[in-house]
Amino acid sequence: MPDIRILTEAELRGLVPLDGDAVDCVEQGFTTLAGGGVEMPPIMTLLVPDHNGEVCVKTAYVPGIDSFAMKMSPGFFDNPKLGLPSTTGLMVVFSSKTGLLEALLLDNGYLTDVRTAAAGAVAARHLAREDAAHVCIIGAGVQARMQLKAMTLVRDIKSAVIWARDSAKAEAAAAGLRDDLGIEISVSSDIAEAVSSAGIVVTTTPAADPVIQADWLQPGQLVIAMGSDQEHKCELEPACLAKADLYVPDSQAQCAVKGELRSAIAAGLIAGDQSFAELGGITAGQAAGRRSDSDLIIADLTGTGVQDTAIATLAGSRADAAGAGATFTS
Amino acid sequence: MPDIRILTEAELRGLVPLDGDAVDCVEQGFTTLAGGGVEMPPIMTLLVPDHNGEVCVKTAYVPGIDSFAMKMSPGFFDNPKLGLPSTTGLMVVFSSKTGLLEALLLDNGYLTDVRTAAAGAVAARHLAREDAAHVCIIGAGVQARMQLKAMTLVRDIKSAVIWARDSAKAEAAAAGLRDDLGIEISVSSDIAEAVSSAGIVVTTTPAADPVIQADWLQPGQLVIAMGSDQEHKCELEPACLAKADLYVPDSQAQCAVKGELRSAIAAGLIAGDQSFAELGGITAGQAAGRRSDSDLIIADLTGTGVQDTAIATLAGSRADAAGAGATFTS
Repeated sequence: MPDIRILTEAELRGLVPLDGDAVDCVEQGFTTLAGGGVEMPPIMTLLVPDHNGEVCVKTAYVPGIDSFAMKMSPGFFDNPKLGLPSTTGLMVVFSSKTGLLEALLLDNGYLTDVRTAAAGAVAARHLAREDAAHVCIIGAGVQARMQLKAMTLVRDIKSAVIWARDSAKAEAAAAGLRDDLGIEISVSSDIAEAVSSAGIVVTTTPAADPVIQADWLQPGQLVIAMGSDQEHKCELEPACLAKADLYVPDSQAQCAVKGELRSAIAAGLIAGDQSFAELGGITAGQAAGRRSDSDLIIADLTGTGVQDTAIATLAGSRADAAGAGATFTS
Repeated sequence: MPDIRILTEAELRGLVPLDGDAVDCVEQGFTTLAGGGVEMPPIMTLLVPDHNGEVCVKTAYVPGIDSFAMKMSPGFFDNPKLGLPSTTGLMVVFSSKTGLLEALLLDNGYLTDVRTAAAGAVAARHLAREDAAHVCIIGAGVQARMQLKAMTLVRDIKSAVIWARDSAKAEAAAAGLRDDLGIEISVSSDIAEAVSSAGIVVTTTPAADPVIQADWLQPGQLVIAMGSDQEHKCELEPACLAKADLYVPDSQAQCAVKGELRSAIAAGLIAGDQSFAELGGITAGQAAGRRSDSDLIIADLTGTGVQDTAIATLAGSRADAAGAGATFTS
């Protein structure tokens, strides 16, 4: 059997930073998804109720890519009490031609962070106003920080405001981001004002009840809701989707069960059989994105297996080029 | 993060032979499944149609077991043309308490072979006549050989007959098994006669159309159908299930879509809403198995995530005890 490459989190952080290449590779994944021929089965979820845990498995076969990833993402929400991270996991990479195991990316969830932030950048590149310069970030976790960085990769962002339930965490995130990005970053205690002021709003929370009200949304804004990825989560008041000029799911099938679309359908504000152009249809040029500077647009990002296969492939090719990682034969 | 143990196929073959302990551990898995609290999501299947491939993902959380496995089983059916095995894969083992990655079992499908054969032994232990001494094996692949060995672990088997479409392969399997098991083994070209003569019949083919006819089945027999594990497979004529005194699925939900039960329901010979005691219900003593020496019993084994978690746990504990494998930190 051929060698298996094993890469650690530290190696992967060095090989795959959140940069323009990461955004381009994830965008290419979405574009390919729109072209057909991609196989992306529904997400598998294993519940571990005795320990407040769950594991999601995502995967996609993308024609033209020589390998595919299967990603396992455990989320065990009592871990912080033990001094451990809630979310960890790995990606397993197989040959698309033979199914043979090619690589083990022991990233502890890092590549998921990158491909998730990169999807935000793809949405902003195609859906935000060209002159969007002020961002509102809701939340203060890893994705809050990475999404703001992602926005700076595709728009000339001058300033940002962060709102989080825990204002100390918001302050800490703002301090770190000021150092990293060199832009003006404030913390707000007035979420309505923070949301209304921004050209791009990114919601990054695990909220089960809406944190964003439709009243706060303004013409011209792009709202990227990337927190909801499970049946019980919801960041936007359902009326937000009804108010938007354009609603863009990453995968409509997934968003209808795990994204903001779910609660909008449940509220009767969106018809269950209404069809929306997906993000990949827009990146592929098959469907229109923003039509005017006054469009209010909502992007609903639940996270797709195509993104995992795309980022794993980027990691693999960079590791090959660098001769990075350990090899193993079995 | 804690160390991750990595075990190769060669190490796993040494640590986990097909023996009584493997059978007991898989039986315990089935028994626990019947007790409730097991989480076993539907199998995930990724198709790779451009390369005649597929990958199945199976998993189960079993209360009381400290870890759980996620198993990825690629089947790429053009591989033999390239000199590679069709089926490969690995198991990934996580902590049930924290979801942290504990071990990578790079078994290339070996542990699946063991737990699949072990399930046959569990079925025979509880459902075959005590005096069953002659086995008929249909097929000549790895499972044909391992199932016969499995039968010898739970019954005093004196002789066996092998039938396969390719009689040269059947002869080769028989020669190898004579050496391994030291029992009388013949090859038959008359499948009807071979099936009718045996106390236990094990079907191990990837057939899409039935290879066993109901007419051939006799009172007192146990038929273990373990080949069908996909929506298009079927080894038994649907009338077999109607003729049986007892039908035992490993998981009724799975067998109704991937096992022999699927075609029997489709043929209108079994009602879709009829409920059957599962193998775990019988091993747990909740339901009766064989009631008389004249019962004709059919066991439908599609393969369950519980078996994977059970065998992976056995492998992990033996590796711990032996200090086997490499360790890795990420």
